[in-house]
Amino acid sequence: MGKTRITAEPGMPQIVIAREFAAPRELVFRAHTDPDLLAQWLGPRDLTMTVESYDVRDGGRWRYVHTDSDGNAYGFHGIFHGTPSPQVIVQTFEFEGAPGHVKLDTTTLEQRGATTLVRTVSAFQSVEDRDAMVAADMERGVRDSHERLEELLATLRRG
Amino acid sequence: MGKTRITAEPGMPQIVIAREFAAPRELVFRAHTDPDLLAQWLGPRDLTMTVESYDVRDGGRWRYVHTDSDGNAYGFHGIFHGTPSPQVIVQTFEFEGAPGHVKLDTTTLEQRGATTLVRTVSAFQSVEDRDAMVAADMERGVRDSHERLEELLATLRRG
Repeated sequence: MGKTRITAEPGMPQIVIAREFAAPRELVFRAHTDPDLLAQWLGPRDLTMTVESYDVRDGGRWRYVHTDSDGNAYGFHGIFHGTPSPQVIVQTFEFEGAPGHVKLDTTTLEQRGATTLVRTVSAFQSVEDRDAMVAADMERGVRDSHERLEELLATLRRG
Repeated sequence: MGKTRITAEPGMPQIVIAREFAAPRELVFRAHTDPDLLAQWLGPRDLTMTVESYDVRDGGRWRYVHTDSDGNAYGFHGIFHGTPSPQVIVQTFEFEGAPGHVKLDTTTLEQRGATTLVRTVSAFQSVEDRDAMVAADMERGVRDSHERLEELLATLRRG
Protein backbone atom coordinates (compact mmCIF):
# COMPACT_ATOMS: atom_id res chain seq x y z
CA MET A 1 0.00 0.00 0.00
CA GLY A 2 0.95 3.63 0.45
CA LYS A 3 4.18 4.97 1.78
CA THR A 4 4.83 6.22 5.28
CA ARG A 5 4.65 10.01 5.53
CA ILE A 6 6.41 11.69 8.43
CA THR A 7 5.79 15.41 8.91
CA ALA A 8 7.85 17.47 11.35
CA GLU A 9 7.34 21.15 10.55
CA PRO A 10 10.11 23.51 11.68
CA GLY A 11 9.36 25.15 15.03
CA MET A 12 6.33 22.95 15.79
CA PRO A 13 6.35 20.68 18.89
CA GLN A 14 4.60 17.99 16.89
CA ILE A 15 5.18 15.06 14.53
CA VAL A 16 2.49 13.61 12.27
CA ILE A 17 2.94 10.08 10.93
CA ALA A 18 0.50 8.66 8.39
CA ARG A 19 0.20 5.53 6.28
CA GLU A 20 -2.54 3.62 4.57
CA PHE A 21 -2.65 -0.14 5.22
CA ALA A 22 -4.34 -2.79 3.05
CA ALA A 23 -6.61 -4.16 5.77
CA PRO A 24 -9.96 -3.41 7.41
CA ARG A 25 -9.92 -1.11 10.40
CA GLU A 26 -10.88 -3.79 12.94
CA LEU A 27 -7.82 -5.84 12.00
CA VAL A 28 -5.50 -2.82 12.17
CA PHE A 29 -6.96 -1.98 15.58
CA ARG A 30 -6.34 -5.54 16.78
CA ALA A 31 -2.71 -5.31 15.63
CA HIS A 32 -2.36 -2.11 17.71
CA THR A 33 -3.97 -3.44 20.90
CA ASP A 34 -3.28 -7.20 21.12
CA PRO A 35 0.16 -7.43 22.77
CA ASP A 36 1.00 -10.71 20.98
CA LEU A 37 0.43 -9.02 17.62
CA LEU A 38 2.08 -5.76 18.68
CA ALA A 39 5.29 -7.62 19.55
CA GLN A 40 5.43 -8.87 15.95
CA TRP A 41 5.67 -5.45 14.29
CA LEU A 42 6.44 -2.54 16.62
CA GLY A 43 10.04 -1.36 16.48
CA PRO A 44 13.13 -1.75 14.31
CA ARG A 45 13.69 -5.21 12.80
CA ASP A 46 17.03 -5.76 14.52
CA LEU A 47 15.63 -5.41 18.06
CA THR A 48 13.77 -8.00 20.12
CA MET A 49 10.47 -6.75 21.47
CA THR A 50 9.01 -7.86 24.81
CA VAL A 51 5.65 -6.51 25.90
CA GLU A 52 5.57 -6.50 29.69
CA SER A 53 2.08 -5.06 30.08
CA TYR A 54 -0.54 -3.63 27.75
CA ASP A 55 -3.64 -2.74 29.71
CA VAL A 56 -5.85 -1.39 26.92
CA ARG A 57 -8.41 0.68 28.85
CA ASP A 58 -8.86 4.20 30.20
CA GLY A 59 -6.01 4.79 32.68
CA GLY A 60 -4.36 1.48 31.78
CA ARG A 61 -0.59 1.27 31.78
CA TRP A 62 1.60 -0.21 29.05
CA ARG A 63 5.30 -1.08 29.03
CA TYR A 64 7.58 -2.80 26.55
CA VAL A 65 11.29 -3.37 26.19
CA HIS A 66 13.42 -3.44 23.05
CA THR A 67 16.64 -5.46 23.35
CA ASP A 68 19.52 -5.37 20.88
CA SER A 69 21.87 -8.20 19.95
CA ASP A 70 24.40 -7.04 22.59
CA GLY A 71 21.75 -7.36 25.29
CA ASN A 72 21.19 -3.62 25.77
CA ALA A 73 17.59 -3.06 26.85
CA TYR A 74 15.50 0.05 26.10
CA GLY A 75 12.31 0.41 28.12
CA PHE A 76 9.25 2.45 27.16
CA HIS A 77 6.00 3.01 29.03
CA GLY A 78 2.89 5.13 29.10
CA ILE A 79 -0.79 5.30 29.96
CA PHE A 80 -3.92 5.05 27.81
CA HIS A 81 -6.19 8.10 28.07
CA GLY A 82 -9.82 7.28 27.32
CA THR A 83 -10.99 3.86 26.23
CA PRO A 84 -9.12 2.83 23.06
CA SER A 85 -11.52 2.23 20.16
CA PRO A 86 -11.13 1.35 16.46
CA GLN A 87 -11.61 5.08 15.83
CA VAL A 88 -8.95 6.51 18.14
CA ILE A 89 -6.25 5.52 20.62
CA VAL A 90 -4.76 8.17 22.93
CA GLN A 91 -1.70 7.30 24.99
CA THR A 92 1.29 8.90 26.62
CA PHE A 93 4.80 7.69 25.80
CA GLU A 94 8.04 7.85 27.79
CA PHE A 95 11.47 6.49 26.93
CA GLU A 96 12.96 5.36 30.23
CA GLY A 97 16.42 6.52 29.11
CA ALA A 98 15.18 10.13 29.21
CA PRO A 99 13.04 10.52 32.35
CA GLY A 100 10.81 13.58 32.50
CA HIS A 101 10.30 13.70 28.75
CA VAL A 102 6.77 12.70 27.82
CA LYS A 103 4.82 12.82 24.58
CA LEU A 104 1.11 12.46 23.96
CA ASP A 105 0.14 10.31 20.95
CA THR A 106 -3.27 10.39 19.29
CA THR A 107 -3.76 7.64 16.70
CA THR A 108 -6.83 7.76 14.47
CA LEU A 109 -7.88 4.83 12.28
CA GLU A 110 -10.00 5.70 9.26
CA GLN A 111 -11.52 3.02 7.04
CA ARG A 112 -11.23 3.93 3.33
CA GLY A 113 -12.88 1.16 1.33
CA ALA A 114 -10.61 -1.86 1.68
CA THR A 115 -7.81 0.09 3.34
CA THR A 116 -7.28 1.90 6.63
CA LEU A 117 -5.51 5.20 7.07
CA VAL A 118 -3.54 5.24 10.32
CA ARG A 119 -2.48 8.69 11.47
CA THR A 120 -0.59 9.46 14.67
CA VAL A 121 -0.16 12.99 15.97
CA SER A 122 2.56 13.22 18.62
CA ALA A 123 2.43 16.28 20.89
CA PHE A 124 5.76 17.11 22.55
CA GLN A 125 6.59 19.22 25.62
CA SER A 126 8.88 21.37 23.46
CA VAL A 127 10.30 21.75 19.97
CA GLU A 128 13.67 20.68 21.44
CA ASP A 129 12.14 17.39 22.58
CA ARG A 130 10.63 16.90 19.14
CA ASP A 131 13.94 17.62 17.43
CA ALA A 132 15.77 15.22 19.77
CA MET A 133 13.42 12.42 18.78
CA VAL A 134 13.92 13.13 15.07
CA ALA A 135 17.71 13.21 15.61
CA ALA A 136 17.51 9.81 17.38
CA ASP A 137 16.67 8.22 14.02
CA MET A 138 13.02 7.75 14.89
CA GLU A 139 12.36 7.48 11.15
CA ARG A 140 14.09 4.12 10.80
CA GLY A 141 11.98 2.65 13.60
CA VAL A 142 8.76 4.01 12.12
CA ARG A 143 9.50 2.74 8.59
CA ASP A 144 10.54 -0.71 9.85
CA SER A 145 7.44 -0.88 12.03
CA HIS A 146 5.11 0.05 9.20
CA GLU A 147 6.63 -2.47 6.80
CA ARG A 148 6.41 -5.18 9.42
CA LEU A 149 2.80 -4.22 10.20
CA GLU A 150 1.95 -4.41 6.49
CA GLU A 151 3.45 -7.92 6.35
CA LEU A 152 1.65 -9.02 9.53
CA LEU A 153 -1.69 -7.71 8.27
CA ALA A 154 -1.23 -9.65 5.01
CA THR A 155 -0.60 -12.83 7.02
CA LEU A 156 -3.62 -12.22 9.25
CA ARG A 157 -5.86 -11.58 6.24
CA ARG A 158 -4.78 -14.90 4.74
CA GLY A 159 -5.04 -16.71 8.10
CA MET B 1 4.47 40.26 42.43
CA GLY B 2 4.62 40.01 38.67
CA LYS B 3 1.70 39.72 36.32
CA THR B 4 0.43 36.54 34.70
CA ARG B 5 1.71 36.12 31.14
CA ILE B 6 -0.25 33.86 28.81
CA THR B 7 1.31 33.07 25.43
CA ALA B 8 -0.64 31.34 22.67
CA GLU B 9 1.20 31.81 19.39
CA PRO B 10 -0.91 31.52 16.22
CA GLY B 11 -0.74 28.06 14.67
CA MET B 12 1.06 26.46 17.63
CA PRO B 13 -0.62 23.60 19.56
CA GLN B 14 0.73 25.05 22.80
CA ILE B 15 0.02 27.56 25.56
CA VAL B 16 2.68 28.92 27.91
CA ILE B 17 1.59 30.46 31.22
CA ALA B 18 4.13 32.16 33.49
CA ARG B 19 4.07 34.17 36.69
CA GLU B 20 6.47 35.02 39.47
CA PHE B 21 5.20 34.48 43.02
CA ALA B 22 6.54 36.11 46.20
CA ALA B 23 7.33 32.86 48.01
CA PRO B 24 10.08 30.25 48.22
CA ARG B 25 9.83 27.33 45.82
CA GLU B 26 9.08 24.71 48.51
CA LEU B 27 5.99 26.64 49.56
CA VAL B 28 4.79 27.09 45.97
CA PHE B 29 5.31 23.37 45.40
CA ARG B 30 3.27 22.55 48.52
CA ALA B 31 0.44 24.76 47.25
CA HIS B 32 0.49 22.78 43.98
CA THR B 33 0.52 19.30 45.53
CA ASP B 34 -1.32 19.44 48.88
CA PRO B 35 -4.99 18.96 47.92
CA ASP B 36 -6.21 21.03 50.90
CA LEU B 37 -4.14 23.98 49.69
CA LEU B 38 -4.94 23.38 46.01
CA ALA B 39 -8.68 23.61 46.73
CA GLN B 40 -8.09 27.12 48.12
CA TRP B 41 -6.73 28.65 44.92
CA LEU B 42 -7.23 26.58 41.76
CA GLY B 43 -10.05 27.81 39.54
CA PRO B 44 -12.29 30.85 39.12
CA ARG B 45 -13.39 32.58 42.34
CA ASP B 46 -17.11 32.01 41.71
CA LEU B 47 -16.81 28.19 41.57
CA THR B 48 -16.59 25.75 44.44
CA MET B 49 -13.65 23.38 44.19
CA THR B 50 -13.72 19.79 45.47
CA VAL B 51 -10.59 17.67 45.15
CA GLU B 52 -11.69 14.04 44.91
CA SER B 53 -8.22 12.52 44.60
CA TYR B 54 -4.72 13.88 44.19
CA ASP B 55 -2.24 11.02 44.16
CA VAL B 56 1.03 12.93 43.75
CA ARG B 57 3.37 10.23 42.43
CA ASP B 58 4.46 8.67 39.14
CA GLY B 59 1.33 7.19 37.55
CA GLY B 60 -0.91 8.68 40.25
CA ARG B 61 -4.36 9.88 39.29
CA TRP B 62 -5.97 13.19 40.20
CA ARG B 63 -9.54 14.39 39.89
CA TYR B 64 -11.39 17.52 40.99
CA VAL B 65 -14.79 19.05 40.42
CA HIS B 66 -15.76 22.70 40.04
CA THR B 67 -19.37 23.50 40.94
CA ASP B 68 -21.16 26.75 40.13
CA SER B 69 -23.88 28.47 42.18
CA ASP B 70 -26.60 26.70 40.12
CA GLY B 71 -25.15 23.32 41.06
CA ASN B 72 -23.64 22.55 37.65
CA ALA B 73 -20.56 20.37 38.14
CA TYR B 74 -17.48 20.33 35.88
CA GLY B 75 -15.12 17.41 36.38
CA PHE B 76 -11.43 17.27 35.44
CA HIS B 77 -8.91 14.48 35.79
CA GLY B 78 -5.48 13.37 34.72
CA ILE B 79 -2.39 11.39 35.62
CA PHE B 80 1.02 12.45 36.96
CA HIS B 81 3.92 11.39 34.76
CA GLY B 82 7.17 11.00 36.69
CA THR B 83 7.49 11.81 40.38
CA PRO B 84 6.46 15.43 40.98
CA SER B 85 9.32 17.45 42.49
CA PRO B 86 9.81 21.11 43.46
CA GLN B 87 11.61 21.43 40.10
CA VAL B 88 8.96 20.01 37.78
CA ILE B 89 5.46 18.54 37.72
CA VAL B 90 4.23 16.71 34.59
CA GLN B 91 0.58 15.74 34.35
CA THR B 92 -2.11 15.09 31.79
CA PHE B 93 -5.40 17.00 31.93
CA GLU B 94 -8.87 16.12 30.65
CA PHE B 95 -12.11 18.04 30.96
CA GLU B 96 -14.82 15.43 31.35
CA GLY B 97 -17.22 17.52 29.27
CA ALA B 98 -15.01 16.92 26.21
CA PRO B 99 -13.93 13.25 26.28
CA GLY B 100 -11.02 12.32 24.05
CA HIS B 101 -9.36 15.72 24.34
CA VAL B 102 -6.22 15.52 26.43
CA LYS B 103 -3.43 17.99 27.13
CA LEU B 104 -0.03 17.43 28.64
CA ASP B 105 1.10 20.06 31.19
CA THR B 106 4.70 20.57 32.27
CA THR B 107 5.08 22.97 35.20
CA THR B 108 8.56 24.12 36.18
CA LEU B 109 9.28 25.99 39.43
CA GLU B 110 12.38 28.16 39.45
CA GLN B 111 13.60 29.88 42.62
CA ARG B 112 14.76 33.46 41.93
CA GLY B 113 15.98 34.95 45.18
CA ALA B 114 12.90 35.43 47.34
CA THR B 115 10.48 34.67 44.51
CA THR B 116 9.56 31.63 42.41
CA LEU B 117 8.86 31.66 38.69
CA VAL B 118 6.11 29.18 37.85
CA ARG B 119 5.88 28.30 34.17
CA THR B 120 3.42 25.82 32.65
CA VAL B 121 3.73 24.60 29.06
CA SER B 122 0.55 22.92 27.84
CA ALA B 123 0.92 20.64 24.82
CA PHE B 124 -2.32 20.06 22.89
CA GLN B 125 -3.36 17.34 20.44
CA SER B 126 -4.09 20.02 17.83
CA VAL B 127 -4.17 23.77 17.26
CA GLU B 128 -7.99 23.47 17.15
CA ASP B 129 -7.99 22.03 20.68
CA ARG B 130 -5.72 24.82 21.84
CA ASP B 131 -7.96 27.47 20.24
CA ALA B 132 -11.06 25.89 21.81
CA MET B 133 -9.52 26.19 25.26
CA VAL B 134 -8.60 29.85 24.68
CA ALA B 135 -12.15 30.50 23.41
CA ALA B 136 -13.58 28.90 26.57
CA ASP B 137 -12.27 31.88 28.57
CA MET B 138 -9.43 29.93 30.09
CA GLU B 139 -7.76 33.28 30.79
CA ARG B 140 -10.25 34.28 33.48
CA GLY B 141 -9.68 31.01 35.33
CA VAL B 142 -5.91 31.37 35.14
CA ARG B 143 -5.87 34.98 36.35
CA ASP B 144 -8.27 34.25 39.21
CA SER B 145 -6.21 31.19 40.19
CA HIS B 146 -2.95 33.12 40.19
CA GLU B 147 -4.37 35.98 42.29
CA ARG B 148 -5.81 33.48 44.76
CA LEU B 149 -2.51 31.60 44.89
CA GLU B 150 -0.65 34.88 45.59
CA GLU B 151 -3.05 35.57 48.46
CA LEU B 152 -2.75 32.03 49.84
CA LEU B 153 1.05 32.14 49.72
CA ALA B 154 1.03 35.45 51.62
CA THR B 155 -1.16 33.85 54.32
CA LEU B 156 1.07 30.77 54.52
CA ARG B 157 4.21 32.90 54.83
CA ARG B 158 2.68 34.80 57.75
CA GLY B 159 1.32 31.59 59.34
